[in-house]
Amino acid sequence: MSGRVQPRLKIKQMEKLSIVKIGGNIIEDQASLDVFLKLFSNLEGKKILVHGGGKRATHIASKLGIESKMINGRRITDAATLEVITMVYGGLVNKNVVAKLQALNTNAIGLTGADANSIKSNKRPVKDIDFGFVGDVKEVSHTAIDKLIQANFTPVFCAITHDGEGQLLNTNADTITSQVAVGMSKLYETSIYYCFELIGVLRDINDKDSVVKHIDSNTYQDLLEKGIIADGMLPKLENCFDALYGGVHEINMGNTSMLTQENDNFTKITL
Amino acid sequence: MSGRVQPRLKIKQMEKLSIVKIGGNIIEDQASLDVFLKLFSNLEGKKILVHGGGKRATHIASKLGIESKMINGRRITDAATLEVITMVYGGLVNKNVVAKLQALNTNAIGLTGADANSIKSNKRPVKDIDFGFVGDVKEVSHTAIDKLIQANFTPVFCAITHDGEGQLLNTNADTITSQVAVGMSKLYETSIYYCFELIGVLRDINDKDSVVKHIDSNTYQDLLEKGIIADGMLPKLENCFDALYGGVHEINMGNTSMLTQENDNFTKITL
Repeated sequence: MSGRVQPRLKIKQMEKLSIVKIGGNIIEDQASLDVFLKLFSNLEGKKILVHGGGKRATHIASKLGIESKMINGRRITDAATLEVITMVYGGLVNKNVVAKLQALNTNAIGLTGADANSIKSNKRPVKDIDFGFVGDVKEVSHTAIDKLIQANFTPVFCAITHDGEGQLLNTNADTITSQVAVGMSKLYETSIYYCFELIGVLRDINDKDSVVKHIDSNTYQDLLEKGIIADGMLPKLENCFDALYGGVHEINMGNTSMLTQENDNFTKITL
Repeated sequence: MSGRVQPRLKIKQMEKLSIVKIGGNIIEDQASLDVFLKLFSNLEGKKILVHGGGKRATHIASKLGIESKMINGRRITDAATLEVITMVYGGLVNKNVVAKLQALNTNAIGLTGADANSIKSNKRPVKDIDFGFVGDVKEVSHTAIDKLIQANFTPVFCAITHDGEGQLLNTNADTITSQVAVGMSKLYETSIYYCFELIGVLRDINDKDSVVKHIDSNTYQDLLEKGIIADGMLPKLENCFDALYGGVHEINMGNTSMLTQENDNFTKITL
């Protein structure tokens, strides 16, 4: 309308997509969940939610007389445990989250990886340990997920995938998040928000004010060498850089308040 | 290509849509379910599946120490029972059906009425009996369901809806079927297939060869007067005629073999 000629060759900007992951600590606390779902609903633009399951499944399993089997501190998903996980993650948690999001005018649609054939996994091969019905993500259908997004639905994934041959598989929610993000990066400028208990990656685990606000591939090496990234944070960060090398735009780690515009006290990770 | 002029004004034929409902008897028997899912997968054209839950929920509830409350022979859905229903129908049954359909190359997507805001209900008002968290269908979003169908997904509904305010509600699967069918009739020539234990409406309950192959609004009155439609069949047939008056094209009642082309020994109901 200004009469100015628009430049003809303008690099087409990809639309933004946010993928938010919440863990059991938020899922299990009704008040925290309600606060989070409001923040998530208010998040502008296209988005996806991924949720873990938390201890509810263990609790219900034990009530049903199903023992949690652990080998070397790692949980084994036998057939009975998979049934409970399917009930709790895929049913109870997922459908209640969807209903609550609908009440907040977010048109959510709850999914396992079997739904819309969105995430296929391989049953983890038995080496030293037989993990049972656990899946390692093989293929994310970004086109299937995008059909839902284009129809203005907000996908809500639980931590279950399938092998394409009728078998559901228990799958790590962090991995689902990063793999879905890598897949969606073909179509969108995709950012991940990992919400967890900490406010971010801390220089000093005892000092909540020591958040490392930005990590890139250079500072990452430095933090590794200094032992600041260690233990449980190590696989998380490795997972993050895999996702970034896979095309994800940026990854944010912190508690749920990072979803508000006011808070910048969290860790942003880029290449 | 033949050079003939096609008539310009041809009434646009609506595309066909089949809505198939299966009950607990099929859901609970793995072999029957597998046979049915193959038939359903082979069904040509656009389709929707609606499944009930069966006795699995009651069984798991009792294991969890939740008593099934009945008043005047009718089940009451208290908060604990709703949780079990959400786990079993929305999780265990729905997600396993979806995974099995994927293995049969049917791109299924499992839904409650909360997902995609597809089916809204009113919590049943308390009169003589407080049924608890039971929903009476208020609104089917045929546009939301059609977005999924247009994206080549096959919706698989369990018997749960929501009130739009964050509350899931236990809802009769037959009613979901007929209400979804009425909604979809705005866009498709919609047929319902109610699969149940009987091979159809029988003239003589003791004679399996006495199937009434066609019921319309005239013969319906006749069958009512003769007492052939009575007891449990009465509300089912009333429900059918409500759906037909609501725009549904035709309704078929029989066992799952009616989904094959070879079998015509079932009851077809039209206006």
